[in-house]
This record gives sequence, C-alpha cells and structure tokens, in this order.
Amino acid sequence: MKHIEVCLTPEQLHHFDIHDRLVVVIDIFRATSCIVTALANGAEQIVPVAEVEECQSLQERGMLGSAERNGDQVEGFDFGNSPLSYVDNPKIKGRGIAMTTSNGTMAIQKAKSASQLIIGAFLNKTAVVKHILEQDKDVILLCAGWRGQVNLEDSVYAGALLDDMVKDLNYANDACGLARSAYHLGKNNPKRFLQDSSHFQRLAQKGRLEDIDFCLSHDLYSVVPVLKGDALVL
Amino acid sequence: MKHIEVCLTPEQLHHFDIHDRLVVVIDIFRATSCIVTALANGAEQIVPVAEVEECQSLQERGMLGSAERNGDQVEGFDFGNSPLSYVDNPKIKGRGIAMTTSNGTMAIQKAKSASQLIIGAFLNKTAVVKHILEQDKDVILLCAGWRGQVNLEDSVYAGALLDDMVKDLNYANDACGLARSAYHLGKNNPKRFLQDSSHFQRLAQKGRLEDIDFCLSHDLYSVVPVLKGDALVL
Repeated sequence: MKHIEVCLTPEQLHHFDIHDRLVVVIDIFRATSCIVTALANGAEQIVPVAEVEECQSLQERGMLGSAERNGDQVEGFDFGNSPLSYVDNPKIKGRGIAMTTSNGTMAIQKAKSASQLIIGAFLNKTAVVKHILEQDKDVILLCAGWRGQVNLEDSVYAGALLDDMVKDLNYANDACGLARSAYHLGKNNPKRFLQDSSHFQRLAQKGRLEDIDFCLSHDLYSVVPVLKGDALVL
Repeated sequence: MKHIEVCLTPEQLHHFDIHDRLVVVIDIFRATSCIVTALANGAEQIVPVAEVEECQSLQERGMLGSAERNGDQVEGFDFGNSPLSYVDNPKIKGRGIAMTTSNGTMAIQKAKSASQLIIGAFLNKTAVVKHILEQDKDVILLCAGWRGQVNLEDSVYAGALLDDMVKDLNYANDACGLARSAYHLGKNNPKRFLQDSSHFQRLAQKGRLEDIDFCLSHDLYSVVPVLKGDALVL
C-alpha cells in the first residue's frame, strides 16, 4: 500500500482517478457482508448487477438470484440481502449468484474501472487489511452509503481499516479524518454507536437485528472477494 | 429549531429540500469567518458572487472587492480572503463588499433558495446557536468543503453546533454522526486535530497560520449575517 484515501459516498467518486487504484467497496448493511459470506460458504462467483431486470434474466439462465430494494427481498428471487441466508447453505455450493442491492452493487458498478476491486466487511476485515498491505498500490476505501448520501456504518468500517494500517492520525484526505473519528468514538460499543444511524433504524424496524449482529462480527472469514471481469470470486 | 441535519458538501445538497429550511453556511477557512468579521467591523453588506468577473464588475461600480482563488488574493481586488484584513479597518465602515471565494460563496449561491440563509463561523458560534434555537424551522448545516469534497474543519464546526444544541448522541442524518465524532475527537486541541487536514496544510504552506488561529477563535463577535436578497447583512 502506498497512499490511502476514503470516499464517503459513490457520488464523490468522480473526484478520484481510480484507474490505477485498488478500490475496497464497503456496504456493511448488508451487500458486502452478503458477498463475503456467500463466497466463504461455497458459492463459486457473485455477479453484481445494477438492475433487478438484469438479475432476473441471469436467474432465468440458471444462476441463483439475489435481489433487494429498500431493505426487502424482491419477489421471485432465491435470496434477499440477508447474509445469514448463505451460512452453511448447501444450495449455494459451486453455484453462481446474480445479485442486485440498493447501494452496494451500484457502488461496485461505479468502481469497475479500478485497477483492482475487492470487497470489504467486518466479516473479513483482517484479511482485507493483509491484502491491502501486500499490494504496491494507492488505495481508495469506497463507502456505498445510502442512495448517494453518506452513512455511518460504512464510514466506521473505513475508519477501522485506517486504524489498522496507518499508525499516526495523519491522513491523505479529510474524509479519512471523519471516518477515523467515527471509528474511535464508536469502537468500544459499535452497536450502540450505530443504533441511531439511518440504516440501523431501517433494519431494526424490519426485524433484522440478527443481520446487524452478524454484519458487525469480526473476522468470521478470511476470504477476499476480487472482481474478475463481471464476477466477484476468491 | 425542530430538526437538524448536516450536509457535508454542496455536492450533496440536492438530497435536501431547502425551501422551507434554515440553512447555515459554513466555510471556516476562510469565507464565512471573513463575512462575520467584515460585518462585525462595520461593513454594511457583503454581496457573495460565484465568479471573479462579477466581483470585478461590482467593484468597478463602487463596491469594495474581495476575491480569492486557491487560497490567494486575485490581483486587482481590495481584499483576498483573510479575515484579519477586516479587523478595525476604517476603510470598510458603511461600505458594501463584493466577495468571491473558491468554496464559501459557491455554497451560498447553491443554497440561496433556502427559507433563511445565515453565516456560521467559530467567531460567532454562540450567536448562531441562539439564532437557530429561536427559529421554529428545520435546519441544515451546510459545509462548504473544498471543491466539492468534504473537509474536516467545516465538519468539526457542524459537530460543535450539534453538540451545543442536541443533548444526546441522537441525530437526524448520518452526516451528523460523522461531524459530531470529529468534533468530539478534536475538541480538546482543535488546531492539532486539524493540522493534517488538507486546507490547514494549504494555508500553512502559504504562511497563513495567523488566519488559522483567528478563524478558530470562539465568539469574538455576536453578529449573525443573514442573506436578504443578494446581500448578507446584520
């Protein structure tokens, strides 16, 4: 790793030249947590797509289909956006999954031209740090946010990665300072720190507290999903 | 005050319906610090404009002219963007000042359709808090940032306002959580906390450390500049 910056929402990505960068896409609640979990539990590949129609078409051609909008599973698909649905699920072994979500898969689409694109979550945090440190590349931590706006959980995760990699409080762009501040303020009790955040509230109202707990678990997996062509693989 | 949100950069302002809101424009280094200082020291009005040419045309028609780009005073104008140039300056008494800066005046232009637009700085922080609490309006704290990107000093100020007004860590949008985190982490030594931030570095390289100290001073003035038509007045 040479130089590391944070992009708090895909709307700000145009400020960065990503062509020779390693981009880490972050959507803690829940797309990147799902991708890590599905691949760690035996799925062969994840194909992220922006539109529900495209996801449906891939499902019709034999892939499994995972589609979420506004926190809910879209009717007619095999999966929604709960990482728990992939844990120890024999149905996904060796299979490809087409996936579309409100924010995470859009962020991936937007960052496709990066030199390398990988997927970060608390579930594979230590593996992501190790991967980044092994690359001789400038790095962008891209938070998926919520419909273009910043969100707290993705920012906190970016701050946690920075904290593991950069020793002093020095930072490359000001968004690093914001992310790191949020991580520091919340690190002793991340769940409590995040409980007023918009997407935590949204998931809690939908009865998805188990998903939240799972997405905030550290290092259950040591995989690092990488984008190859149109698919995320290990 | 009813409900308060933070917008970390003018690029994110399209997410907010500002028509019935009170918008506080924040550009600590240095536009809003200049506006507060100039009006507190006797200027009659400040006319913020987006372009240097417009500023020049107003100067030719008898106003004083203040123009800054990339941290430097533009040639041919009476003032650059140093608040110290307005302190106890008899030249500005009763005069109007046309002003254009890299970020602050752009943010003002972008938020002109707000129900009310006021100017916030550390220099008038307590007066701004009092003003906000007296209004029965939803509030947006609009950070001017740097060329569309977020910056740390404006975010820290937004966090400081929140801290004065909202008792618990509850917040209306996730950007509030980021701003408030930065304020909390930096409040014991704001100058040290900000010293790695991009605009602090830029100003320090230009030998503007006195401006930085002045802009971080609290409550030297009790004025609240308000936009009336095209001009900021008291």
